[in-house]
Parts: sequence; C-alpha cells; structure tokens
Amino acid sequence: MNQAFIPLLVGGFGLLMALIIFMMILKIPSGSGKVKDIAEQIHSGAMVFMRREYTLLFSFVALLLIGLYVGFGSWQTPFAFLIGAISSAIAGYFGMFSATKANVRTTVAANENGEAAALSVAFYGGSVMGLTVAAMGLLGLGLLYYLFGGDHETVHAIHGFGMGASVVALFSRVGGGIFTKSADVGADLVGKVEAGIPEDDPRNPGVIADNVGDNVGDVAGMGSDIFESYCGSMIACIAIASTMPVALYSQMAERQQDLMFLPLGLASVGLLCSLMGIFMVKMFSGQKPDVALRFGTIGATIIFIIAAYFLMAYLQIQSMVWQCVILGAFGGILIGLVTEYYTGGKPVREIAKDGETGPATVMISGLAVGMESVVIPVITLAAIILGTSILLPEGAGVYGVGIAAVGMLATVGITMAIDAYGPVADNAGGIAEMAELGPETRAITDGLDEVGNTTAAIGKGFAIGAAGLAALAIIAAFIEVISHNVPDFSLNIGDPRVLMGMFLGGIFPFLVSAMTMRAVGSAAFDMIKEIRRQFKEIPGLMEGTAKPDSEKCVEIATTAALKRMVGPGLLAVLAPVVIGFGLGAAALGGMLGGALISCVLLALTMANAGGAWDNAKKYVEKGHFGGKGSDVHKAAVVGDTVGDPFKDTSGPAMNILINVMAIVSLVIAPLLAKMPGGLFG
Amino acid sequence: MNQAFIPLLVGGFGLLMALIIFMMILKIPSGSGKVKDIAEQIHSGAMVFMRREYTLLFSFVALLLIGLYVGFGSWQTPFAFLIGAISSAIAGYFGMFSATKANVRTTVAANENGEAAALSVAFYGGSVMGLTVAAMGLLGLGLLYYLFGGDHETVHAIHGFGMGASVVALFSRVGGGIFTKSADVGADLVGKVEAGIPEDDPRNPGVIADNVGDNVGDVAGMGSDIFESYCGSMIACIAIASTMPVALYSQMAERQQDLMFLPLGLASVGLLCSLMGIFMVKMFSGQKPDVALRFGTIGATIIFIIAAYFLMAYLQIQSMVWQCVILGAFGGILIGLVTEYYTGGKPVREIAKDGETGPATVMISGLAVGMESVVIPVITLAAIILGTSILLPEGAGVYGVGIAAVGMLATVGITMAIDAYGPVADNAGGIAEMAELGPETRAITDGLDEVGNTTAAIGKGFAIGAAGLAALAIIAAFIEVISHNVPDFSLNIGDPRVLMGMFLGGIFPFLVSAMTMRAVGSAAFDMIKEIRRQFKEIPGLMEGTAKPDSEKCVEIATTAALKRMVGPGLLAVLAPVVIGFGLGAAALGGMLGGALISCVLLALTMANAGGAWDNAKKYVEKGHFGGKGSDVHKAAVVGDTVGDPFKDTSGPAMNILINVMAIVSLVIAPLLAKMPGGLFG
Repeated sequence: MNQAFIPLLVGGFGLLMALIIFMMILKIPSGSGKVKDIAEQIHSGAMVFMRREYTLLFSFVALLLIGLYVGFGSWQTPFAFLIGAISSAIAGYFGMFSATKANVRTTVAANENGEAAALSVAFYGGSVMGLTVAAMGLLGLGLLYYLFGGDHETVHAIHGFGMGASVVALFSRVGGGIFTKSADVGADLVGKVEAGIPEDDPRNPGVIADNVGDNVGDVAGMGSDIFESYCGSMIACIAIASTMPVALYSQMAERQQDLMFLPLGLASVGLLCSLMGIFMVKMFSGQKPDVALRFGTIGATIIFIIAAYFLMAYLQIQSMVWQCVILGAFGGILIGLVTEYYTGGKPVREIAKDGETGPATVMISGLAVGMESVVIPVITLAAIILGTSILLPEGAGVYGVGIAAVGMLATVGITMAIDAYGPVADNAGGIAEMAELGPETRAITDGLDEVGNTTAAIGKGFAIGAAGLAALAIIAAFIEVISHNVPDFSLNIGDPRVLMGMFLGGIFPFLVSAMTMRAVGSAAFDMIKEIRRQFKEIPGLMEGTAKPDSEKCVEIATTAALKRMVGPGLLAVLAPVVIGFGLGAAALGGMLGGALISCVLLALTMANAGGAWDNAKKYVEKGHFGGKGSDVHKAAVVGDTVGDPFKDTSGPAMNILINVMAIVSLVIAPLLAKMPGGLFG
Repeated sequence: MNQAFIPLLVGGFGLLMALIIFMMILKIPSGSGKVKDIAEQIHSGAMVFMRREYTLLFSFVALLLIGLYVGFGSWQTPFAFLIGAISSAIAGYFGMFSATKANVRTTVAANENGEAAALSVAFYGGSVMGLTVAAMGLLGLGLLYYLFGGDHETVHAIHGFGMGASVVALFSRVGGGIFTKSADVGADLVGKVEAGIPEDDPRNPGVIADNVGDNVGDVAGMGSDIFESYCGSMIACIAIASTMPVALYSQMAERQQDLMFLPLGLASVGLLCSLMGIFMVKMFSGQKPDVALRFGTIGATIIFIIAAYFLMAYLQIQSMVWQCVILGAFGGILIGLVTEYYTGGKPVREIAKDGETGPATVMISGLAVGMESVVIPVITLAAIILGTSILLPEGAGVYGVGIAAVGMLATVGITMAIDAYGPVADNAGGIAEMAELGPETRAITDGLDEVGNTTAAIGKGFAIGAAGLAALAIIAAFIEVISHNVPDFSLNIGDPRVLMGMFLGGIFPFLVSAMTMRAVGSAAFDMIKEIRRQFKEIPGLMEGTAKPDSEKCVEIATTAALKRMVGPGLLAVLAPVVIGFGLGAAALGGMLGGALISCVLLALTMANAGGAWDNAKKYVEKGHFGGKGSDVHKAAVVGDTVGDPFKDTSGPAMNILINVMAIVSLVIAPLLAKMPGGLFG
C-alpha cells in the first residue's frame, strides 16, 4: 500500500472516534429546569458568536483566496489554503460544539454520580476537541500530501494549507480572546468588586457571556492555535526535506520522500498513542483527577517515543532523527513543568504576600515573575536548536528543529484533550453556581476546575514552546526556499536590510499586544457600563426576583471581538507581504527573526504573569493573608484582572502572530524569489 | 597643529567652563536654618551613597583590570579601561556634587528672587553635569586617540575606554535606580496612601532618601548612561573606520585617519554648540521655562548641523557623511517628540479616564500605551539604518549608523543639562515643602518641576534611541573586527549557532528587568516596614514635634541598592565572555542581535508606560475625574507606583545592558578571533 494513505486512514479513524465519543456525551443526561436553561443560553451564545465570527472570517478568506489565485496564477496554493481554513474551522467548531454539550452533563454527573463520573464527562468533552484537531490535521494535510507531495513542482502548494489554518487561528484566537476577557473582566469588576456578589452569581448579567467566553476563547481559540502549530511544523519539515540536496538527505535516509513523509507518519503514530492515552485517563478516572490526567499524558508520550523508533526503522531513517523527536518531546514536558512552577509554586505565594502592601506591589512582582519565567523555556528552545544541529549532519539542523516540533506536538490529541477539559470543568462549575445546586456538587466541580487551571497553564506554556519551534522551522523553510532560487541569499545580521527587518519585526508583537489589550479594556468598559445599568434599572434584579438581560452582554462582547480582531488580523497577514515585496527578502527574513524572538519572550511573560496572578488570587481566597474580602484579596484581584487579557488574549495572540507571519512568508517565497531585492531594496 | 589635539583642547575648555559655572553656583546664597539643614542631609546622604557605591565599583573594576591584563598580556587595553572608568566616575560624581549644591540654591532663589532666577540656578546645576559628561568624554577619549589612534596595532585598545565607561554606568544606573525607586515607592505608599500626608512631608522618614535618590538615580545614573552611549558611538566609528579597506573609505574621504577622527571632531564642535545653547537658555530665562529650554536645545542642534558641514569640508569628507549626521540629529528629535506625546498627550488623559473603573484598567491601558509607543521610535531607528545604507557606499552603512549616533549625541552638553535640570528642580521643590516655605515659593518650584518632568521623559526617549544606535554601531564594529581576522565569518540567521544566540540574547533584558524590579519591590518593602515602624514608635512624629530618623531610610536604600546591583552587573559583563568563548563568535553575534532588539523594545515600553502613568496621576491631581483623594486618584497612584521602577530602574538599565554586552564583545573580539568556534561550538 502507498504509505501516503496512512495519514488519511489514521485521520479518518481519529475523526470516527471523536464522533463516537461525541455520541456518548449526548447520551448522558443533560439535566432539566434551570440547569438545562442556563446550559442552553451558554450553548446558543457560543453558537451565535461562532456563526458571526465565521461569516466575517470567510469573507476575509475569500479575499485572500482571490489574492493567492492572482499571485500564483494556478489553483494548487489557493486550493490548499481553502482546505486549511476549512479544516481549522471544522476542528474549532466541532470541538466547541461538543464542549458546550459536555459542560452541563458534567454538572449533572457531579450532582448525581460523583467526581469520577464528572471527570469522565468533562474529559470526554475535551477529548472530542483533541481528537478532532489531530484528525483534521492528518486528513487535510494527508490529502494535500497525497495530491501534491510527490512532485517537486507542486509540493510548495502544501504551504497554503498552513496559511489557511493560521488565518483561521488568528481570528479565532484574537476574537475569542477579546470576547472571553471583556466578559470576564467586566463581570468581575462590577459583580465581585463593586456589587460584592460571588463569581458566576446568576444575578450578574455578564456571567453567561463569561461562560460563553470560556468556550469561544479557551476551547475554539486554543484548538485553532495548536492546530496551526501542529500543521505548521509538519509543513515546515516537508518543505525543508523537499529542498535538501542528495548529499545531505542521503546521510539521514535512503529516500528523500521518506524524510518528507516522516512528519505525517509521526503525527499518525501520535494520534493512535493519544487514543491510548485517552483510554488510560478513562481507566484511571477513579483516581484523583490530576493523577488520571498525568497518567494519560505521560503514558501517551512514552508509547509515542517507542513507536516513533519503530516507524523510523520501518522508513529506514537514521536514529539521529529519532533523537530529535525525543529532544522535542522532553523539551515540551520541561517547558510545561517550568510553567507549572511559575504559575503554581513559590512565585505565586510571593505575589500573594506582596498584596500586603497593596495592588502596586502585586503588579510589580507579577510582572517580574512573568519576565523571569522566560529564562528556562527559551534556554530549552536554544538547547533544542543546538542539540539538533549537533545530532544531524551540518546544514540539516533545521530539519531536526522541525522534527523536534513535530515530536512535541504529535500527541496533540491527548494534550489538547486535557487542555480543553479545563474550560468544560470551569463551565460545569459556573452552571452549578448559577443553577444554585448544592455545595457538594460545587465542591466536585471546583476540584475539577482547579486541576483544569493547572493543566490550562501548562498547556499554554506548551503551546508557546510548540509555536516557537514551529515558527522557527517555517522560517528556516522560508530561507531554504529563497536560497534554492537565489544562490547567494543569506540573512547576515551585519547586512543593513536584515538589521532593519529585525527592528521592524520586533515592533509587531508589541503593537498587537497593545491593540488586543486596549480592545479588552474598551470592551470591558462597555460591558461594565451595561452591567451597572442593568443593576440600576432592572427592578428586583439584586433581590433575585427578576432576570438579567444576559443576551445584551453576549452581544456587546461579540461586537467588540469582531470589530477589534480585524486590525491585528490585517497587520499579521499584510506585514510580510508589504515588507517582503517592498524592502526585499532579506528584510523579510530579518523581520521574521526579530518578530520570533520578541513574540516568544512576550508570550511567555504575559502567559506566566497572568497565570501567576490568577493563582495568587485563588491562594488568597483559600484563606491566606486575610482571605476573601481582605485588602490583600482586593490587591490580588487587581493582579488577576490585569492578568486576564495578558494570559488569554494578548499572550496567546503572539503564538499565532509569528506563525501567520512565517507561513505567509513561506507561501509568498516562490514569488519573492523572482524579485528578491523588493521594490525599494 | 596635529588635529588630534583638538578634542583635548575643547574638552579642557568644557571642563573649565563647568568649573566656572560650579563656582558661580557656590556663590549663590544657600539659605539658612531648616532649609540649609535639609539640604545638608540630602547632600551628605548622596555623598555617602556615592562613596559606598564607588568603593564596591572599584573593587569590581580592579578585578576586571586584572582579567584584561591576563587576557591581553599588554597594558594598553587595561589602561584604556581604567581611564574610561575614572572618566565616567568623575563625570557622575562632579555632576551630582553640583546638583546637590544647586538644589537648595534654587529653592532660595525661588523664595527670594522669583522664577527667572530659580530657573537659572537649576539650569546651571544641570549644566555642570552636561558639560562635565561631554568634556570628560572628549578628554579621556581624546587622550587615548592621541596615544593609540595612529597605529593599527594599538587602535583596538581604545575599546577598553568604552568598557570602563559602561561598567561604571551599569553600576551607577542600576544601583542609583534601585536606590531612588525603593525610597520613592516606600515613602509614597506609607506616606501618601496609608498616612494620608502630602508628598515630601517633613514628618515622613523616607522623604530625605527619596530626594537623595533623585540625585543618585536621575543625575549620576543618567549622566553615566549618556556618557557611555556618547563614548560608545565614537569608539564604534573609530573601530569601523580603522578596519575599512581603501576601496571603501576612499569613496568617502581622502584619508582613513580623517574618518577615524570625525566622531571626535563632531563631538568637539558639539560641545562648543552646547555652550552656546547654555548661554541661550540663560539669555531667555526671563521667558517661560519650557520656551527657554527649547530655544537652547533646538538652537544648539541647528548650529551644530551647520558647523558639522564646515568641519567635514575642512576634513575633506564627502557630504553624504554629513547627511548621516542630520539623520541622527533629527531622529533624536523625532524620538523625543514621540515620547512627549505618549507621556504627555492624549494617551495620558485616557489612562486617567480608565481610573474610573479602578487600578486594573489603569494598569492595562498604561501597559498598552507603553507597548504601542515603541512603534515610531523603532521605525525611526530602522529608517536611520536604511537611510545610512542608501547614502553611503555599500558596506559602509554601519559607519553611517555610528556617525548618526554621534550626531544625535554630539550636543549632549545641552541635552544632559536640560535633563539634569529636572531632578534639581524636583529637589528644590522637595526642600521648599519640607522646610515649609510659603505657597508662592512652592508654586515656582512646582512650575519648574513640571517642565522638568517633560524634559526628563524626552531625555529618556532620547537616551534609549541614542543607546540603541550606539549599541548597534558597537555590534557592527564587533562584526568588522571578527571578520577582519576570520575571513568567512558571517552572522547568518539561518545558522543554528546564530539563531541559538539570538534566543539566548533575548533572555537577558527580561531577566535583568525582573531582577531590578524585584530589587525595588523588596527594598521598598523594607522601607515601608521601617517607615511604618517610625510612625508607630517615635512619639510625636505625626504631630510634628519629633524628628524622623531619615538616616536609617537612606541606609536601607543604600544597602539594598549595593546588594542588588551586583547580580545584573555580573550577568551583563560575563554573558558575552561565557557565550563568546563557550559557544563561539557566531553565537555571540546572534546574542547581541537578539539582546539589542529586546532591550530597545523593553526600554521604550517601560520608560513610556512609566512616564504616562506618572503624568496620568498628575493630571488627576489637577482636579480631573475627582482630583486628589478620589478613587480615580487612588487608581492612578497604583499606576504611578508600578511605573516608578519601570521608568527609573528597569527601563534605563536596558540601555546600559546592551551597551555593556556590546562593548565587552568588542573588547574581547581580537581574542575571540583566534578561536572563533568557541570551546563547544
């Protein structure tokens, strides 16, 4: 059998499993009365947002489709772009659809059958997302590889898939991020701080929007983010392998085609291992939630590394390439552990303690924690770069970086399942609170949610590391494609055009962070005004005899998200085109380098500062330093509120930004190679 | 006459003028009673700190001196290093000495002779600093150029001067920054926020330390910062010109020696123009303070550009080099204007407005302002890089970047005078407040102080731009020196070692920011505890019948600053040595590139966010959004408190960090060229 069929078969199998799990979720009782009612509001709010987001998104996709067709004058790249966009959209939509079905069923299970049952349901909800992301990646990319991968003339078209996935991810992540945090910040500031009512109190008009936000931001947004890195790293490997001269690839494998196929093969193996991991979590669901989840992830990774060895043996690829897989897989785990420390360990308690001298010292120490947290993850990335360049023959190191990224991301089925489990558990808790279920139920959902917070923080660290490596591999592929056509091309830092590009590239992450933070700030401001208005104008709302107008709040968040995601989106897509064709390929290469460094650093800083502030607040709420309602708590809430857009809007936008810029550069590389100096270069 | 004498003559003349102005200051009445007493406390506190700081610093310098002698096996580089360290220390010490003499005389002048007289005294105080920085630079560098500049074997030793200046700057800036902000934050949090007493209230034990901090941080620290960029840009030009092949330099000048001399010539002309500017400010001191100061700066810049033209004509250098000077001078002004907008314009009012929804939204919008503020300054730097590479022959662009930096910094005499005027006026206000002089006196010092805040913000923007260009030129010189000895050396971003270096380089700015912010946080915490203790334990303190123990607070800030400046100092000096000799020259080059981008971006973000928060608070205090004591004011105070270490400790440390790393790399370049692969490369 042609091995190009394998990804399609495994992808199809993964999608089938996702469907079966989805059917199983639907069979679980979904409650009645108030519970059902609230769940319905969240589900329909999320669906309304997704529909409006995708409408806007697809007009953007249509424009780019035309642009690509005009630029290339052939159908392959635009076709791949469309497939990429559709695959990403399906993964995000289906994953989020099932998350909004699983949330209420988790609440009901917690209420009726206890912790183990609730964990199962929440994790099933996340698993659909994880499996769909992996399966759609294999199906889409597998199809294009089957169509274009065998021919040196058409293989470049595959890059279009990455661009499609990235553009969808950009809008999902930025739009979802703005939605979720404007709702969260607005609901918290008026509800918790001003009115003094608990989080997720049904009287608060912003609470439904907040819960919708968990789904559109943390499920759909995160899914498309990882989908993009997952596919991006595979595409980069294919691109780098396809431009390798025989003297180089023959040191690693018999056939060049096998090096091109390797990322897809690894991802296929990874999907099967993820399925095993998912069943392991199910098997251990009687244990504590964090133990069960850890068994699944680590188990899947170990099996994957072993299976990868046999895959390479089958493909007759040298074991040094396998060692790159190990580097990537362990690098991912290390970055996750560091994230866990900074967002859950000693630094968190220190931030809480700094609350004793007010919000200003909470801010200073949280920012310091975020900045310090970049050190080990970035050294890890540098070590992977060094390690792969030592392991592989000279000139092939970048292929190793790509393979390390694939190694980190191959078990995305289980890592995403665990990540998406978090917002499902969070939602389940919200529903329990709003429907005023008993304290036992709330205790179970709280326990699940707490584990979810840690997994979400780890997932974010992992996503940044993976995105950084994927972007790096794509940038390397970009350099290879240009060099293949322009023999004396090099990105020398001493070259003024490269240097200028580096400076310009450094700007974008800061600008996009500023834009997205302002977006959250201004949308939250609108939300605050609306919630205040409702508290004032709706008679009986505070007494619990009247219902809030939750839809109005969903509407505000939706409109703000859609309006404000256009700017960063255009910036990310147009910047490489303008700089590449305007100032030349060298300036564009420099720009990617500068943007990569500053994206990774900002992303880690913002994600970890945000996570640390979040948990410092929770630590105080557990009764430390005066507990809830104390001045220290008020100071910690300020930190948490600033951390919200940091960790869920601006920080994650960095992953996408660098990947969009890198993949757009890779897509336009063949056109750029014809005029490498640019118009003004 | 040998033209190499000119810098020595002009430098000597500048120093003489500084001495004359200093004598004039001493003749002005320095008050009596309480006023004299407080001034004496500030002066002696500052001197105690400087003595202890310089003691620590000089043991560090002695160690490096031995290291350099062992490394080079010759006396020239260590000698230049020592001269650089001494020159910088003299400039900082003398400048600060006269600032602490001018502050009280400004208070007295405001009290007795009105605004124009007070402006004159404060500006004289700043002028001593400005002139000393420029003069010591010319004298020290001029001497070394005279000794070593004519011989290709010894010219490299001049780099040692830059390293000496940078090491002193690092300690002054970081130590001074930690001192000033721990005192400021501590005094404000307990005094203004907890005890509800005004800023600079004599009952507050931390107030003397706060005023000492203005001198050691904003005068001595800023002076050594600019001194380093000023000398660094000249050294880079000399180094680049000295390695140019004849085919290249002959397109710009008759003699290579003239291109090497040009930066010193420009700085000599700039010092004379600065003197004219200083007299213009004196002439216009009857006008509004900001008008008088602006006349001086812009006047000096215009005369300088014209004079530079004639200098180049005299040296028979092509006018395209003169155009690089213009690029630099205008680039500096543009960056200053952008800084003025972000720290004084619409963004400030928006931050104040966001105080309506509490401290969290103040934080979010301030951070967004800081991040957005990088865009135009960084584009300006990129445009200077592009512009010089277009103006000059291919391969000589980096020389143009260096000359642009010199053009930006040549009138440092006047720009530093205006910058150092700020803390003198600030101190004068503090003394007036503490000595309880009448409201008329306070109104005058407040007016001078307000102008000082704007000039300080502009000065900071200017310092970052200048430091960025200077570092860039030094890095270019590093590449030239290595390439001169290792023919196939290039810093290709596609090379794994370069890429790894870029990632590692990006870490340092974040780590040093985290270290310095934590230092301020923990020192402020100690300060807060001490001030609280004194309020509680000293009977009659709050009633004004007993005196606070101010010395204890100065002691706390001093100890904290000295202890915490060692870590960042060692990191900055050792990083290039370890990475260069460990991972090779390519990794070091990449590291410098990554560090440069991330230093410039972080420095701008932190300086401008801090400046904007500061002025947002002042805007509220003028009566907007409820004025002093309102909730909006409390929120704005939180922003200001976070902004303090941003703009005065961590932000400025970035300028030095990149320059120290760059100049250390340049100094070790000849050694590195003998083993370019490093131990593990």
